[in-house]
Amino acid sequence: MKKVAVILSGSGVFDGAEVNEAVLTLLHIAKQGASYECFAPDIEQMHTINHLKGEESGDKRNVLEEAARITRGEVKPLTDLDSSEFDALILPGGFGVAKNFCDFAVKGADMTVNDQVLKVGKAFVEAKKPAGYMCISPVLLPHIYGKGVKVTIGNDGEVASAINKMGGEHVNCGVRDIVVDDKHQLVTTPAYMLAENLPDAEEGISKLVEKVLYMAA
Amino acid sequence: MKKVAVILSGSGVFDGAEVNEAVLTLLHIAKQGASYECFAPDIEQMHTINHLKGEESGDKRNVLEEAARITRGEVKPLTDLDSSEFDALILPGGFGVAKNFCDFAVKGADMTVNDQVLKVGKAFVEAKKPAGYMCISPVLLPHIYGKGVKVTIGNDGEVASAINKMGGEHVNCGVRDIVVDDKHQLVTTPAYMLAENLPDAEEGISKLVEKVLYMAA
Repeated sequence: MKKVAVILSGSGVFDGAEVNEAVLTLLHIAKQGASYECFAPDIEQMHTINHLKGEESGDKRNVLEEAARITRGEVKPLTDLDSSEFDALILPGGFGVAKNFCDFAVKGADMTVNDQVLKVGKAFVEAKKPAGYMCISPVLLPHIYGKGVKVTIGNDGEVASAINKMGGEHVNCGVRDIVVDDKHQLVTTPAYMLAENLPDAEEGISKLVEKVLYMAA
Repeated sequence: MKKVAVILSGSGVFDGAEVNEAVLTLLHIAKQGASYECFAPDIEQMHTINHLKGEESGDKRNVLEEAARITRGEVKPLTDLDSSEFDALILPGGFGVAKNFCDFAVKGADMTVNDQVLKVGKAFVEAKKPAGYMCISPVLLPHIYGKGVKVTIGNDGEVASAINKMGGEHVNCGVRDIVVDDKHQLVTTPAYMLAENLPDAEEGISKLVEKVLYMAA
């Protein structure tokens, strides 16, 4: 059975992992006959957003502890992720990626990537194991794969320009489709960068999971 | 297009709505061609559980604000729910139901139901509109439907006895199946009372959604 490592950036679209994307990713890994383990960095969130009001709230939350809300407690610290134990890597999106995994939300193309996330991402590249990144998470890819990596975040001009400025090659893509960089064994899909409903997100995510598992040795 | 009201009890299985059940419910309402709106009571959670450690943490969280994490901000106060605007009602589970919607987690069969939840549940009964309750949420049903209501929470002896003591009629049920009380237009399924994985939960929940929508006028 193929085994996928899934990295979550919290729980809640505005300051953590996009919850629907996370659940749909795990659902389709399981439905397609593979297994998974979830990981998250044991770090404080950049901030906490009251998701009802869309405003910053004062409280401090931990990325790993919040990710555990999606996974019913089954999540490990990202420093425990050993790429040799897995066949593939998948990252759901959400602002948590742009706020907790890097500082794209604040610095755009001048962003840097969290050391733990960078190390794990690069470990899968070096091991020549496939990966899938969805929603906003492809902003990480020029830093992880280097220049010329082909990715999509949908069709947002500003984010696409930033990716290109960092050395990536952005390709526009519909919400229910995927972009495949065969050279890098890398799959991306827009998910909630474009999704207007759950079935939109599900179709792109199920295709991403299918392609990543197909590429996995 | 049939329209379903969905009531959430927070975000996170141990103190709020079971996240996977909530997402799968909304996914299947959408995939089966209906629409939905989400609601949650604007009340403080009974407590907050650190989902990584399984221990109570000190912070206070609001049920409505946390539910907004699942729904990307799209959730209304439960007091805004007008049953005349909907064709059916569905409640995902999670300890939030047993802690924030009633005090079953503390008092068992001596529980009482939150006034807002009781009023809305009864409004759907009085309007003769179908409803679906999953996971632990059927503990509410003897209070909402009265004696003789036929429900399942899977096969947990202690919870089943409590339901029977409160006047319900518990029926054992497999994780991928549903129990239908035709007289009351009521559908229940065990979901994460028994589910060992997401596809388990998905099958029972999709059947519940399908039956509730079929019953809806």
